[in-house]
Amino acid sequence: MPREITAFSNSLVKRVRNLREKRHRREEGLFIAEGLRILTDAEEAGRLPQWIFYTAEMRNHPLVRRLSAACEADGGEAIETNVDILHKLSGKDNPQTVLGVYAEFETSLDRLDRAASGIWMVAQSLRDPGNLGTILRTGDAVGAGGLILVDDCVDPFSVEAVRASMGALFTQRIAKASWAEFLAWLRSGPGQLVALSLRTDIDYRQPSYEAPTFLLVGNEARGLPAAYEDACDLRVKLPMRGRADSLNAAIATAVMAYQVLGQRL
Amino acid sequence: MPREITAFSNSLVKRVRNLREKRHRREEGLFIAEGLRILTDAEEAGRLPQWIFYTAEMRNHPLVRRLSAACEADGGEAIETNVDILHKLSGKDNPQTVLGVYAEFETSLDRLDRAASGIWMVAQSLRDPGNLGTILRTGDAVGAGGLILVDDCVDPFSVEAVRASMGALFTQRIAKASWAEFLAWLRSGPGQLVALSLRTDIDYRQPSYEAPTFLLVGNEARGLPAAYEDACDLRVKLPMRGRADSLNAAIATAVMAYQVLGQRL
Repeated sequence: MPREITAFSNSLVKRVRNLREKRHRREEGLFIAEGLRILTDAEEAGRLPQWIFYTAEMRNHPLVRRLSAACEADGGEAIETNVDILHKLSGKDNPQTVLGVYAEFETSLDRLDRAASGIWMVAQSLRDPGNLGTILRTGDAVGAGGLILVDDCVDPFSVEAVRASMGALFTQRIAKASWAEFLAWLRSGPGQLVALSLRTDIDYRQPSYEAPTFLLVGNEARGLPAAYEDACDLRVKLPMRGRADSLNAAIATAVMAYQVLGQRL
Repeated sequence: MPREITAFSNSLVKRVRNLREKRHRREEGLFIAEGLRILTDAEEAGRLPQWIFYTAEMRNHPLVRRLSAACEADGGEAIETNVDILHKLSGKDNPQTVLGVYAEFETSLDRLDRAASGIWMVAQSLRDPGNLGTILRTGDAVGAGGLILVDDCVDPFSVEAVRASMGALFTQRIAKASWAEFLAWLRSGPGQLVALSLRTDIDYRQPSYEAPTFLLVGNEARGLPAAYEDACDLRVKLPMRGRADSLNAAIATAVMAYQVLGQRL
């Protein structure tokens, strides 16, 4: 039986709302994902929420019933609530009618099986949660293995990153590492490290990429440190025909990833 | 001589702050752009602000001096202020130290010279300002002529769209039209209308695209109406190797645009 919560002052509402802040996510080891489609994707990827919130109108939706039952069988709790509470939890003006609270995943490099895919995404000091989530979503689309976050990237479990990932947060592998840790791990096995760079004359359509290809994109404002680029096997650039000298980080990564995928198809 | 404004209650501060809302932008015909780099791009594209705000530390920056002088010679006003006011105007925690207020451009289809470029972007009912700005930025990168906004797209002059465009708002042409108006205009001259679609078997790398190519992307959640797709000369899809069935709208447009550019280079 679902618990019913309609009071803003409810302690669980406050606790979940706080998960919009990184400090609280880190303390609790929990994060928020919104939308029936995404919660269903999560379930199919083997992830169940610790709490599932939904509005009364969704009570009899077959997917909500299935998710709630699975959540409760797994020791979680189903909670019937209203749009105002969901608005408060998600911070969105038009909140989704279903919201889940999940345990954060382990994100050590050791979990990655590089042989699982011919394409991997690597981001260094990425700051925008929308870019991070979009790179995860693109990674899912090209069949990438996952996303490795190098140095001080934005939190992949932030509400904005989860939202932009459109469920790919649950299907792509995610690892965090320092540059030194990443490079040591990378060189312990096969893998071509390819930097998206402005300091090269090699057009991205020239090389024949070797699997597994690790596509490395840098910080939105500063790009990659020169020393990091130097440690790559290859530096490539995208043609730029306009006034600006750079693309959005998620865009550049996607154009590259589709180039690599195109060679493999 | 710049005017100095340090009071939150100043009427111009309130007026500019209100430009973050579409209603006020429409009433005033004005919008906000932030950052020295973007204001400089705007100047090079022939656009001067009606007001330029900057912090005292930026007073002697050569580009700020040049922009301020040009702004004042054009009948505008330079205003020295502080970070707190800029934070209030932009809504950003770490605001840029320079901000300009510009007149909105005319956005009629008649202004477009389709022969000016071999690639044009067309978005239908696009709702996310970040996607709109990112498509403008990508358009600049591939040398597109501009972006045509069909039906009820988000406002290209919103703070978020201007920010994501990274200056491309000033260099790309922008037009607004209903679907009927757009189609009538398109068919009055040469142009291949290509839809990004899920309802096709044609891989985006197969066709030879004809210039000028008009790349049409639909709403983030619903895609394009079937009738709109039927009116296109070509429907293509991107390979999808993951669980999800769609890409972010700005990502899909960029991968397509680089494919077309690649054929032309």
